This record gives sequence, structure tokens and C-alpha cells, in this order.
Amino acid sequence: MQNFVLHNPTKIIFGKDRIKALAREIPKEARLMLVYGGGSIKQNGVYDQIRQALEGYSLIEFGGVEPNPDYDTLMQGVELARAQGVDYLLAAGGGSVADGVKFMAAAIPFQGDPMEILTSWGKSIKQAVPFACVLTLPGTGSEMNDGSVISRRSLKAKLVFSSPLVFPQFSILDPVTTFSLPPGQTSNGVVDTFVHIMEQYLTYPVDGKVQDRFAEGLLLTLLEEGPKVLAQPENYDVRANLMWCATLGLNGLIGAGVPQDWATHMVGHELTALYGLDHAQTLAILLPGMMKVRAEQKQQKLLQYAERVWGITSGSDAERIDAAIEKTSAFFELMQVPTRLTGYGLTQECIPAVLEQLQAHGLTALGEQADVTPDLARKALEARL
Amino acid sequence: MQNFVLHNPTKIIFGKDRIKALAREIPKEARLMLVYGGGSIKQNGVYDQIRQALEGYSLIEFGGVEPNPDYDTLMQGVELARAQGVDYLLAAGGGSVADGVKFMAAAIPFQGDPMEILTSWGKSIKQAVPFACVLTLPGTGSEMNDGSVISRRSLKAKLVFSSPLVFPQFSILDPVTTFSLPPGQTSNGVVDTFVHIMEQYLTYPVDGKVQDRFAEGLLLTLLEEGPKVLAQPENYDVRANLMWCATLGLNGLIGAGVPQDWATHMVGHELTALYGLDHAQTLAILLPGMMKVRAEQKQQKLLQYAERVWGITSGSDAERIDAAIEKTSAFFELMQVPTRLTGYGLTQECIPAVLEQLQAHGLTALGEQADVTPDLARKALEARL
Repeated sequence: MQNFVLHNPTKIIFGKDRIKALAREIPKEARLMLVYGGGSIKQNGVYDQIRQALEGYSLIEFGGVEPNPDYDTLMQGVELARAQGVDYLLAAGGGSVADGVKFMAAAIPFQGDPMEILTSWGKSIKQAVPFACVLTLPGTGSEMNDGSVISRRSLKAKLVFSSPLVFPQFSILDPVTTFSLPPGQTSNGVVDTFVHIMEQYLTYPVDGKVQDRFAEGLLLTLLEEGPKVLAQPENYDVRANLMWCATLGLNGLIGAGVPQDWATHMVGHELTALYGLDHAQTLAILLPGMMKVRAEQKQQKLLQYAERVWGITSGSDAERIDAAIEKTSAFFELMQVPTRLTGYGLTQECIPAVLEQLQAHGLTALGEQADVTPDLARKALEARL
Repeated sequence: MQNFVLHNPTKIIFGKDRIKALAREIPKEARLMLVYGGGSIKQNGVYDQIRQALEGYSLIEFGGVEPNPDYDTLMQGVELARAQGVDYLLAAGGGSVADGVKFMAAAIPFQGDPMEILTSWGKSIKQAVPFACVLTLPGTGSEMNDGSVISRRSLKAKLVFSSPLVFPQFSILDPVTTFSLPPGQTSNGVVDTFVHIMEQYLTYPVDGKVQDRFAEGLLLTLLEEGPKVLAQPENYDVRANLMWCATLGLNGLIGAGVPQDWATHMVGHELTALYGLDHAQTLAILLPGMMKVRAEQKQQKLLQYAERVWGITSGSDAERIDAAIEKTSAFFELMQVPTRLTGYGLTQECIPAVLEQLQAHGLTALGEQADVTPDLARKALEARL
């Protein structure tokens, strides 16, 4: 096992009818800004529950944060918050809203050009406004971690930052708020969670037995609950299990003490930036490709994954690995997320553009062994035409 | 899944050669008290590493905290700390030292009789001195939770308290510090961890799929690593896996959102208070007894446990459950912890005394269904003669 530091101060308030806890958790004197996305919280009752819980608070609103939250949009919120003296943010929505609020929390008090937050990967953050989340779309894990991904469409860039200063103070996770999600968003959340876990699991063995068992336990739960949620979108326990999987899939726990990959994510980000694919769609395409072209380095963990997650125990090493890759992409397809570029109308022609972006962003040595060059990324993409 | 709140602010610093991090974590102006037990930290090098890391700090010492830390001993430390104006405590040792320091941290600033901390189960704690741990004996999980068990031998009592104010600020877990543990203490730690997990797992199903998978993952790791550690006490990865299992077994994670039992612990505490058995020894006796006499209420989880942890899939329900109970006690015996009262020289005659103590402490409706009466505890004990 590798040395690690694990410190996650976010308080999780999980379950039915918990939004009313907001008034217990947020100081009465806070000057609050409620941040949300396209307005689904107004349809599903979450907005009303929040307004009711926060009656009597000084509260302004900033809506319209888009999926893959955009720097320019968020900076409008930052300006508004500065002008109004906002000192506490509340994100209501999915990972995009949470990620956006993390950026805003750091940008509001930032001295200098807030773009530095992104170009320094978060290292330039010296302080942040406190914030909390009401999660309505599980998947990214942003509700219990200190990472964020911000797009800047004007530069065709998708940039990652993290800082211990942007852990949410608390997050409220009420599975009922996810009942009304469109199937596509639900599926994206399952795939996103699945791939987060794989990025921390499918590397090389360091005898991190607990981390492996936890990762496998989350994957097994996704396999059980994923198909169920499409058939029974209002099954509370299924929604609860998926929501808790998503949080635990990326809150630092299963990645502590083991190597991490993230090449699938980094190449996927470029597909989103260039062609507007949903984040999870890019992962569904790239993960099977990465598994295939990196099967040699990942052999031991692939065999463990095949056996413990899929119960594959017969056949040669290569056959078991191929079967596990096949089952992985079949699971994504079962979740109604296509796993090939052509499934999104993309052809071979998109590949050079992705590689160029990787070069432009200096992402030329990705993965747990830093051996995912643009050339290897090309092979992974070609395997998914 | 049940509603839950999960909030664990303790920072974990895990790995080789991490004690030097003390100076980065503890404020330079702190008036420190180093608290330890019988002095093993002076033999195994931990004491020297701590003194070296904290050179230049204002530091006094309080040694001699016994296993099952005693109220009267700890109050001597409290008096010393008060007299010297101590404002930061550092526990170096196992769960007993950590538990003792939690009590001291709450007692030092306590207004009134500190015994109230225990009789109120911690509810009367209004503030606590900050403290940290250097863990040298994994098992209790105290290094990353807010619970503590204090004995008061003069009253033959073992009392439990908890408070969010007694989470450690941080804990340093260096598996190397556990290489020199006597086999008995190592074994106790494995059994203690195992039973902590079972108290949160072996109840009734609430469809907490992740919690179940995590608990099973920890149990499987203990089954793999427990026997290895006795054969290879200086195997770093084995020690690391066991240490991390112990922390995760009782840091709130696997118990969040599911029912919890703890009857085995509560009855076991009386055996320790009356006859001085090690905590883990009482658990090794009682868990199989409780499993046997409560097999009906616990049937579904027992069958799941039999299959997923022990791979038992053939035989009638009753046969599979009996086999799982048998394998559980055989594992404790393999870890060289006897599982019968007679293994510790105790006979039938001890049973009425235990029941009397349970009555005296008001512990007459234990377990996840509050159905463990003294009479049921008697049956569990009789099953382990």
C-alpha cells in the first residue's frame, strides 16, 4: 500500500426529507446565494423546499449554470456575489452546479485574474467562501470532494482544479429528489460513477486489499442497481444505493493508498470540449478502449476485475480480459449509453483533433504509469470507432 | 436504507515514516501533553520519533494509562494537565490510550464532576481540548471516531461515551510501529475489528447494498491477512491492510444508514469489568453465542454472510448458518483467541454475576431490535461454556 493522507471534512446528510436541515446548518446571518442550473429544481419541488427551509435568510439567486459549467457564465455569478456581499453559497443541482460553485467560492475572494485558479490546478487558491450542496443528480461525487472541472468554451478547454479549501461544508442527499431525473441523466450518473471507480481501481496491484474490495463492492452495486433504476425510477432504495455509490466513488476513500489512472477522463474531456458529448458518454467510449490497448500493463488488475466483478473464471488470461472488457461495454450499452464514437455520429476524422488538443494542453503522459501518450490515446479511440 | 448523518473530520496520515508530520500538524505554540500506556512506545522507537519530531515544543508527559483505561488514572492526568495549562493532547499507543485521551480532552475543561461525562454518555460535553493520535495498536478504531470506553474499577463499571467534540484532529498510522506487537495484542486487534464490523453488519436487511459490500470486504480482508500476520509479523502490507481495516471498521462509514447491534460488546464489557478478560477475548466468546441464539431474527443476514464471506452455498438454511457460526469461531481460535468461557477458566458460575451487572447498568434491552434481555444474554453465555 502507498502512503496517503485522507481528510474529508464534508458532512453528509442523507435520506428522505432532509432539505429542511438547511436552516440548522447555515448560519442565520449568512448572506446567501442559491446557485442552480437550467431550472429543473423548480419542476421537481427542490427549489420550493429550499426556499421554505431558508425563509428569513438574506438570499439571492443565480441560475443558468450549464452542464460542463462555463467560466464566463460563472464569472457573471462571481460579479453578482461580489456586488451583493455574498458570503455563503448553496449549490442545488448535479455535479456541474457543484463544480461551478466550487469555482465561484474560490473566485469571489480571489486577488488577480480568476483564470489563474484553473491554470494553477487550484494551487493559487488562498481562501474560499463557504458553501454547501443540495444534490439532485448523483454521478460526479463533487458533493463530497475538493475537485472541480470547469469548461471555457471560448478556448475549447475543460480544466480541472482542486483545493482543500473547496470541500463543501455539508451536502444534503435526498434520493427522492432524483426520482424525476430523465433516464439519460440517470444513466450518465451510473456510467460516470462506474468509471470514477475504475480510474482508481484498474491500475497495478499494490496490495491495497481494502481499497480493492471497496471498489469492487461499489461496482457490484452499480451492476445490480443500474438496470433496476431504469425500470423503477421511483424505487427509493435503488436510488439511495446509486446516490451513495456515486458519493463514495469519488470522495477520496477508494483512491487513498493506491495508484490512480484518470487517462480516460482526460482524453474524454477533450471530446466534450470539441464535440459537446456528455461527460459520461465520453467515458463510455474511452474506458473499453483504454482497457483494450493497455491490457498488458493492467493485466493483473484486469484478471482480478474479471473474476470478482463479473465472475469470469474460465478461459486463458487474454480471453478472460477480453470477456471483462466486453461485459463492461455491454453494461454501458444496457444503461443506454453508446460506447462507440459512431454512436454519436463521430468518425475517424475526430481523432486528430482530440490528439491536437491533448498536445496543446500538455497532456502527453497520462495514466498511472504516465505512459498514455497521444499515440496510445489514438489507438484507444480507434478501437472505439 | 435508513437516513443518516456522516461527518468525520479526522485527518488520517497513513504510511511509513509519517511520525515526523507531527510538527506540521500541531501548532508551534501548543502546550502539549504526551499520553501513553505501559511504556512499549519506549521499546519500539515510537517515543524517540515523537520526541524528535516535537523538539522545541512545550511538552510534558503522562504515562501509565492501562488497558481498559481507568477513570481514576485518567483523572490524575487531568489534574496534571490543568495545573500545567495543557491545551493539546497527543495519544501514543492503542485504543486504550486514545480512549483515555478522549476522556481527558473532555474532562480538562469540564465544569462540575467529570463522572457526568460518562453517566450522560457524553451529552454533557460542551468543549474539549484538541488532541491527536499516533496509533501503535490497531483494533478499536478510536483513532478515527468520536467514541470512547472508560472503566471505573472502583465501581466495577465500563462506561461508553461519545461526542462530536472528541474526534481526533488527526491520527498518524504507521504500520511499521505495529511490527513489534506481541502476538496476543495483534490477535486481539484482528478479533476486535472483526466484531466491530459484525455489530454493524449482522442485523436485518435494509437494502444498504454498499454498506454490506464494504463490511464484507473488510471481513474478507481480515480472513486473508489475520493468519498471515501471525506468521509474518513484519510484513508491511499485511500490517497496513490490518491497520486500515481496523480504522474503517469503526469510523462511522459502514454503520451509516443501517441498523446496528452492539449487544456482544455491551455484554462483553461486563465480562471485562468482572473478570479482567481482554476486550477482544470477551467478543470472541460472545459473538458466536449471540449468532446462535439470535439466528432466527438475523437469518437473512446470516445467510448472506455465510455465502459472501465464507462461500457456504450448500445445505439447508439452518446448516449454512451453523456452518458460518462454526467458521467464525474457528477463525478466532486460529487467531489464538479462545472462544469459550472455559478457555479462560470461567464456569457457569460467572453467568449470574454478568446478568446482575447488566441489570444494574440498565442494559436490559440490547441489540438492533432491543430484544437482547438478560435472559437472552444468559443463553448466549451458556452456549459458550
